[in-house]
Amino acid sequence: MLLKNCRFIITQNEKREILENKDILIGERIEKIGNNLSKKDEVIDCRNKIVIPGLINCHTHAPMNLFRGVSDNKNLQKWLNEDIWPREAKLNEEMVYYGSLLAIAEMLLTGTTCFNDMYFYITDIAKAAEKSGIRCFLGSALFDFFDSEKTFEEIKKSEKEINRILEMKNERIKPSVTPHSVETCSDDLLIECKNLAEKYDLPIHIHLSETEKEVKECLKKRGKTPLIFLENLNFLKNKFISAHGIHLNKKEIELINKNKCFVVYNPCSNAKLASGICPAKELKYLCIGTDSVASNNNLNLFEEMKFGVLLQRLKYKDSGAMDANRIFDSATINGAKSLGIETGSIEIGKKADLVLIDKNNIFLNPNYNIISNLVYSFNGNVSDVIIDGKFVVREKKILNFKLDEIIEKVNDFKFVLS
Amino acid sequence: MLLKNCRFIITQNEKREILENKDILIGERIEKIGNNLSKKDEVIDCRNKIVIPGLINCHTHAPMNLFRGVSDNKNLQKWLNEDIWPREAKLNEEMVYYGSLLAIAEMLLTGTTCFNDMYFYITDIAKAAEKSGIRCFLGSALFDFFDSEKTFEEIKKSEKEINRILEMKNERIKPSVTPHSVETCSDDLLIECKNLAEKYDLPIHIHLSETEKEVKECLKKRGKTPLIFLENLNFLKNKFISAHGIHLNKKEIELINKNKCFVVYNPCSNAKLASGICPAKELKYLCIGTDSVASNNNLNLFEEMKFGVLLQRLKYKDSGAMDANRIFDSATINGAKSLGIETGSIEIGKKADLVLIDKNNIFLNPNYNIISNLVYSFNGNVSDVIIDGKFVVREKKILNFKLDEIIEKVNDFKFVLS
Repeated sequence: MLLKNCRFIITQNEKREILENKDILIGERIEKIGNNLSKKDEVIDCRNKIVIPGLINCHTHAPMNLFRGVSDNKNLQKWLNEDIWPREAKLNEEMVYYGSLLAIAEMLLTGTTCFNDMYFYITDIAKAAEKSGIRCFLGSALFDFFDSEKTFEEIKKSEKEINRILEMKNERIKPSVTPHSVETCSDDLLIECKNLAEKYDLPIHIHLSETEKEVKECLKKRGKTPLIFLENLNFLKNKFISAHGIHLNKKEIELINKNKCFVVYNPCSNAKLASGICPAKELKYLCIGTDSVASNNNLNLFEEMKFGVLLQRLKYKDSGAMDANRIFDSATINGAKSLGIETGSIEIGKKADLVLIDKNNIFLNPNYNIISNLVYSFNGNVSDVIIDGKFVVREKKILNFKLDEIIEKVNDFKFVLS
Repeated sequence: MLLKNCRFIITQNEKREILENKDILIGERIEKIGNNLSKKDEVIDCRNKIVIPGLINCHTHAPMNLFRGVSDNKNLQKWLNEDIWPREAKLNEEMVYYGSLLAIAEMLLTGTTCFNDMYFYITDIAKAAEKSGIRCFLGSALFDFFDSEKTFEEIKKSEKEINRILEMKNERIKPSVTPHSVETCSDDLLIECKNLAEKYDLPIHIHLSETEKEVKECLKKRGKTPLIFLENLNFLKNKFISAHGIHLNKKEIELINKNKCFVVYNPCSNAKLASGICPAKELKYLCIGTDSVASNNNLNLFEEMKFGVLLQRLKYKDSGAMDANRIFDSATINGAKSLGIETGSIEIGKKADLVLIDKNNIFLNPNYNIISNLVYSFNGNVSDVIIDGKFVVREKKILNFKLDEIIEKVNDFKFVLS
């Protein structure tokens, strides 16, 4: 496919080049970028388009889109205990499938082409991802609540699901190992998780230092903060992605940076639950996530990027604390690096995960600085989304499933879930 | 016109009623709300629509849409001195007219039907407002920088402009008196402003306690904080709308509440310039504004409402610090009360300023709680906007002017303004 005369191409290559009026020739990967490239099977007129790399949402719980608006005014612990866990107990595979499709629709329609998820019934999330054409990493949230009888069960379950996903042989859908948190996992479970990740060479994705309570209890129970405890278990040597990272001290930040560990900044969810602000400014390997709709309440990474910058400025009382480029990196090239996938920039050889945006969108003019406009102004209303070289959104419409049917389904579920 | 079978009507009446499957009969005002209302000239099928009152943006500088993205990483003082004032010096009437049309387009397309503005060349803003059909209050930003020779000039200019706007005899476009701030206005100018507001019975709209520096300098120069200084000048007895109100102490907050003064919360702009967070939770008469695109960088009140709630939760470390209803009030009924206009709720006799939103919008499902979804999830992509009973946006298109032409114009100006 040939994207012809792209008005602007935000490459996110190392030089941060923004190309003008160039063509992009794509198959499953980006083949050529240049002028007057020759026609392939299909030619798309991009004269009025801004082309960006597909965004990467590094921390999600996709099926929780089903819980939009059910609990808006509680802190993490009450939110979980009183509103979320009782509802999750009612979920079945069908609900998870449709909830995931709803989440995927929302992500695609706002320019996200890959998400990094932790939940349960992940085979059903995988089915939804397969149908939609999106890219993702899926892990079963593992916890034994220090009950040693459950430890082995959890690991067995996880390994089975890893194999089920590997057997799908879909290059876009990958497993990961996702112990829930140090609060909910025994030492044995965490060690087994690390072994499992090493055995299959998978990323580990975990909630880390999200609340003060988590840090205090870990100190009390284990004599160490969550990060130091994980370091002692050698977690920092693997592909290690920690979500939240709000209550990290100076020494921990240094350790994370030294070990090139990626932290996922979740500004909206962390603010809504009043958990605090991640010291994102100080983290070298920063990616970004929305967390779930149940705590956000959307999966719109454009909104997340803006809020992410604004919170850093308030936290550090410094209007230069973070800028648009840095946060745009977190949602593109850094997200890709954290997951070890060849996306996140528009360069020859990278997977063709691309998002087209109308140049004349009201939020993007005048155009002094495209990255600024995308981060601080745009509301995520993209026009087209391409993954692995194929359109999955065309002229603001989802192609691979019927969105209205999904919306009807999820509103039906609410009578069971409320 | 008859809005037939509105799926949901968010009335914002005192009981916070949300009506289902009702009709709304409108002329310039809302005439009837009920079932099976009889057809007038035009019938609009609203089976798949959520109807809300038009939003009110209580603090803007509309023409500054021309400066989108020109200065993103500076605090208020440097932002003004180094980037904004030098550009404002180059502005002419034509630029202000087109910049205003761009701002108005952005507001209309995101559901704002009224704005409260402070700028210069306000006759040209008025022309843009007249063309577009939007409702607004316009005041010339007055400052003499304590140069007594300028005081009288400023007041004369303001009175002339007030009369020019009154002579337009357009019920939608009203003047206001807008001394810039206590930092930039002499005692005499402020007193004259108050007299002018009394003479014509107009609202006073002023920047207040936006930065620590402003408060400190006022204390040094006038021995009082800005608010107490204004109280001594009897400002708190008029229709008094203060924007920002970040650095207010307990006593000042009490005084504001006791006097039923409206404060405009501008969460995004205040965060972006690292000015701080308004104690909005404690302010009884709260409205909301975006400030200008030069510091926001958009005029999307849906985004502003979400950030507004989230910042309160971080400021007070309390996930219950502010909720969706309260911020939705600030953008509707409270905005209307602050300006003394009969809008902000869907009730018989109110002006027909209404916004239609697609019920099946991806951000609004499942629908457990519409206000929550509108505040925390929605990205502002409304479908239709009605002001004084007339469509100004229909199926996401501006009706009264050609948006693409405005976009071309403002991009031409950038070569002069950069």
